[in-house]
Amino acid sequence: MNEHLVIIGGVAAGMSAAAKARRSRPDLEITVYEKSGYISYGACGFPYFIKDDISDIDELIARTPAQAAKQNITAHVDHEVLAIDPRQKTLQGVNLQTGREFINRWDKLVVATGASVSRPPLPGINLSGIFSLRTVEDALAIKNWITAEKPRRGVVVGAGYIGLEMAEALCAHGIDVTIVDMAGQVMSTLDPDMAELVQAELEAQHVHVCLQQKVLSFIGPEQVTEIVRRVTQAVERQAIGQTKPQVDRWRVHEVVTDQGVLPADIVIFGVGSRPAVTVAATAGIATGQTGAIAVDDQQRTNIPDVWAAGAVAETFHLILKKPSYIPLATTANKQGRVAGANAAGGADSFGGVVGTAVVKAFDLSIASTGLSEGYARAAGFDTASVTIDASSRAHYMPSSQPMRVKLVFERDSQLLLGAQIIGQDGVDQRINVIAAALHAGWTTRQLSEIDLGYAPPFAPVWDPVLVAANVANH
Amino acid sequence: MNEHLVIIGGVAAGMSAAAKARRSRPDLEITVYEKSGYISYGACGFPYFIKDDISDIDELIARTPAQAAKQNITAHVDHEVLAIDPRQKTLQGVNLQTGREFINRWDKLVVATGASVSRPPLPGINLSGIFSLRTVEDALAIKNWITAEKPRRGVVVGAGYIGLEMAEALCAHGIDVTIVDMAGQVMSTLDPDMAELVQAELEAQHVHVCLQQKVLSFIGPEQVTEIVRRVTQAVERQAIGQTKPQVDRWRVHEVVTDQGVLPADIVIFGVGSRPAVTVAATAGIATGQTGAIAVDDQQRTNIPDVWAAGAVAETFHLILKKPSYIPLATTANKQGRVAGANAAGGADSFGGVVGTAVVKAFDLSIASTGLSEGYARAAGFDTASVTIDASSRAHYMPSSQPMRVKLVFERDSQLLLGAQIIGQDGVDQRINVIAAALHAGWTTRQLSEIDLGYAPPFAPVWDPVLVAANVANH
Repeated sequence: MNEHLVIIGGVAAGMSAAAKARRSRPDLEITVYEKSGYISYGACGFPYFIKDDISDIDELIARTPAQAAKQNITAHVDHEVLAIDPRQKTLQGVNLQTGREFINRWDKLVVATGASVSRPPLPGINLSGIFSLRTVEDALAIKNWITAEKPRRGVVVGAGYIGLEMAEALCAHGIDVTIVDMAGQVMSTLDPDMAELVQAELEAQHVHVCLQQKVLSFIGPEQVTEIVRRVTQAVERQAIGQTKPQVDRWRVHEVVTDQGVLPADIVIFGVGSRPAVTVAATAGIATGQTGAIAVDDQQRTNIPDVWAAGAVAETFHLILKKPSYIPLATTANKQGRVAGANAAGGADSFGGVVGTAVVKAFDLSIASTGLSEGYARAAGFDTASVTIDASSRAHYMPSSQPMRVKLVFERDSQLLLGAQIIGQDGVDQRINVIAAALHAGWTTRQLSEIDLGYAPPFAPVWDPVLVAANVANH
Repeated sequence: MNEHLVIIGGVAAGMSAAAKARRSRPDLEITVYEKSGYISYGACGFPYFIKDDISDIDELIARTPAQAAKQNITAHVDHEVLAIDPRQKTLQGVNLQTGREFINRWDKLVVATGASVSRPPLPGINLSGIFSLRTVEDALAIKNWITAEKPRRGVVVGAGYIGLEMAEALCAHGIDVTIVDMAGQVMSTLDPDMAELVQAELEAQHVHVCLQQKVLSFIGPEQVTEIVRRVTQAVERQAIGQTKPQVDRWRVHEVVTDQGVLPADIVIFGVGSRPAVTVAATAGIATGQTGAIAVDDQQRTNIPDVWAAGAVAETFHLILKKPSYIPLATTANKQGRVAGANAAGGADSFGGVVGTAVVKAFDLSIASTGLSEGYARAAGFDTASVTIDASSRAHYMPSSQPMRVKLVFERDSQLLLGAQIIGQDGVDQRINVIAAALHAGWTTRQLSEIDLGYAPPFAPVWDPVLVAANVANH
C-alpha cells in the first residue's frame, strides 16, 4: 500500500500542497477533502465576478476534481472533516451531499482548512439577502440575488479589503451603497492620514461611509413595526438572541445600527475572517498566540507528520520577528507548496512575510507593506515617518496621476519598517520595491540609492519611492 | 569674496549639482555655463513633445535662468566653455550669441558637460531634414520640420531607446517609418530572444526594420542622379568626404545604405551618444577605460576641487564591479546631487548602478536591469537563464496582458545577474523589484521568497517575477 497523504481543504493552500506533493512523489496516494462544492478556486476574484468584469465563474476555478484526478489526486468536494486522530492516524467526516459519514487513514496530513467568516449571531442575521463572501456558492448566491432581486440599496459591513471591493462591485450594478465599520477609519491596516484618501475616494464615488457604528440587527420589510417592537423588548430583556427565529423567513429590509437605521436590499459581510482551527485544535494541534495553527518554517505543526498551511496557519512576520496572522492568497499558495513538498518527504521552507497587501477600490490603488506607523509604535519601535506627494509618471505626461507615499522607519537607525502608497496609477508594483527593501533589511538611505528604471511614460526622473527615501534621509 | 563654484553644463547633472550646493551652502557663489539656449530641461520628454503628447516645450523645462537667479544661481546659456586651467583655477569660453570670449575663476568646479550625439561625417549629413535629438533646439527643429514640411517617409538611424521612441513619435504623425541599425537585432541591450518581441511589435505597427544595414550617405531630391554619380565616383576614389560640400543646401530625399536606398523626408539620428570630455581631458582630467571621466564614489576626478557628474562621467556598475558608461537621466540627477553636495563641502557618495532601464515603444514596455545573458557570458560569468511567459494580472481579469520575463543568473551560486521584461502592462515597476534584488545581492531563491502584493486587478497570485524565480530554482 502506498503512503497516503490527506489534505483537509482544497482551495489555495490545500491544492498547492497536493500539486507540489504529486510533482515530488508520483507514488504517493493523495486525497483532498473540501467542505464546499468546489476546489482550487480564486476567491480573490469573486468581487470581479459579482461586478460582472468576469462573466463565467469557471474562470475562477483553476481545477475541478476531474482535472485533479488526471494528476492522480483524489479530491472529494462537499466532504467535511469532523475529527482527526493523530495517534491512530485516521480522520472522520461527513459527506454533506449524502449525510453519510466516512473514515480514512493517513500517513501524512496537511491541514488547510482556511478561514471562516465571522458572522455574528445578531437578530435577523438569517434573513435572505445577507451574505458573506468565502466560497463559490457565496459568490453565485450574491450574483443571483443581484440579478433576480435587483437590490437598490446595499450595506457592506466592514471597510477592509473585501468591503471596499464589494462596495465597488455593488456600485457597478447601480446599487446605492453604505459601508459600516466599528472603527474610526476605513482600512484599519493603514494609518489614519492615509485612510483619509480612501474615504475621500469612496465618498467621491457616492458611497456612504458610516464609521464608529455598530450593526445591531437586521429586519425584514413587512415586519418592521413588529420586529422593532420585539427587538426593543428583547434589548430591554437583554436577550436579543431570542428574537432570531422570528425573522428568518423574510428578506432583509433594514440594518439597525447603534446610530440609526440603514435601508438595505442586500447586505454583505466583508469583515475579517478567523482561522478555521476547531477540528485541528480538538485533535491537539497547537495554535499560537494569534489563534491560528502554530507552524515552523517548514509548515510543521506540533504533531509529527502533520503540517498546516494557508489561512488556518500563522505566518512568521519578518519585521515583527514573530508569528502573525495575515491570511492572504499569496501566502497560502507559498505555504501550501512548502507543506506539500515536505509532506512528500522534502525539506522546503517558507521564509515569512513582510505583510504586503494591495487592493483596488474604484479608481484608487491602496498598497501597504511592513508596519503602519501606528502599529510600529504600538509594537514598541521608536517610529518616524515621512509622507510625500508625487506624480506617478513624468509630471508633463498626460497619463500622470498624483500619488502619496508614506515611509515608516526606525528613528535613529533609519531602518525601514513599512510603507503605504495610495494613488490611481503605478501604486501596486512600487509597494513591491519597498517590500524587497524590507526583505533586504535596508535603511531609508539604502532605499534611496536603488537604481530604478526611468522613462517619462513610467515614472518621474526621481521616482516617488526615491523622493520619499530622500526626504527620510534628511 | 565668497567661494565660487562653477558648473559646466546646466542640464540634469549640472543643475542638480547647483541646486544641491545652494541648499547646502547659502553663501556659495554659483555660476553655471550652458552651451545650449536652455537649462534644466527634461530631454527624455522630447519624443513625447514631438509626438504631440505634450504641446508646450516649456513643460519640459524645469527652470529658466531667471528662476535659477531667484535661488541665487547665475546660469549663462549659450556659453560654451573652451578651456579649463586647473592650476590657475580659471576657465575660458565664448558667448555663442555675441561671439565674445570670457574668462572666470573658480574655487570648485563641477564638470557636467553631458554627452554629444555622434553624427558621423557621411556625405550629405548636413542636408536639411536630418536631425539629432539632444537639445531643446533639436526638439523644436524636428517638430517645426514635421509641421512645416509634413514629411511622409522617415528614417530613424539606430534601434536603441531614442530610436524606438522617435519611431513611435514619427508614426503618430502618419509618417511611414524605417529604422536602420548596423546590429543584427533591435535594442542591443537585450538578448536576441527578447529583442525579437520588440521587432515584432515594430513590424506590427508598420515600422520597417532594416538590420545589419549601414548608412552610407544622404541625398537630396533634385540632385539624385548627379549625387549618385558623384558618390559612386567618390567611392571609387575612396574619398567620400569630398562630395560633402556639394549637397549641403538641399533637403534630404533618400538615405543610401550598404543594402539599398531608403526614401526619407526626415532622418533622425537615434544612435548612441559619447561623453563630451574634450575640454576636461585637455585640462588633464583623467578619463577611464570607457572614455568617460573617471570618478570615485564622491564624484571626485583626479584633479583636486574638480568633480564630474552625469553623462560625461563613468558610473560604478554594482554587478560588473567596475566603472561603466551608462548615461541615463536618473544617474545624472543622482550624481549631480552628490557632486553638488561635495563641491559645497559635504561628503556624500553615490553607490553605483545596476543598469536599470525602461522604454516604451508603441504598446510595448521594454525593461532591463543588470546584465543580459550575452553580456554576462562575455564578462566571464558562468551564466544560466530562464524565460517564462505569464500574465500581468490575474488571468481572468479583462485587463490582463501577456508578459515575458527573463532572469539571468550565475549557474552554480544562482546569484542574480540581470533580468529583462517585455509586455504591454505592469513591466516598468516589476523590473524595479528585480533591480532591488540585484542591489541586495540576492539569489533566485531569495527573489522567489519575496512577499509581493496581490489582488486580481494588479497581478496573478504567483507574480511573474516569482514564477521566473521559482523556475530558476529548479
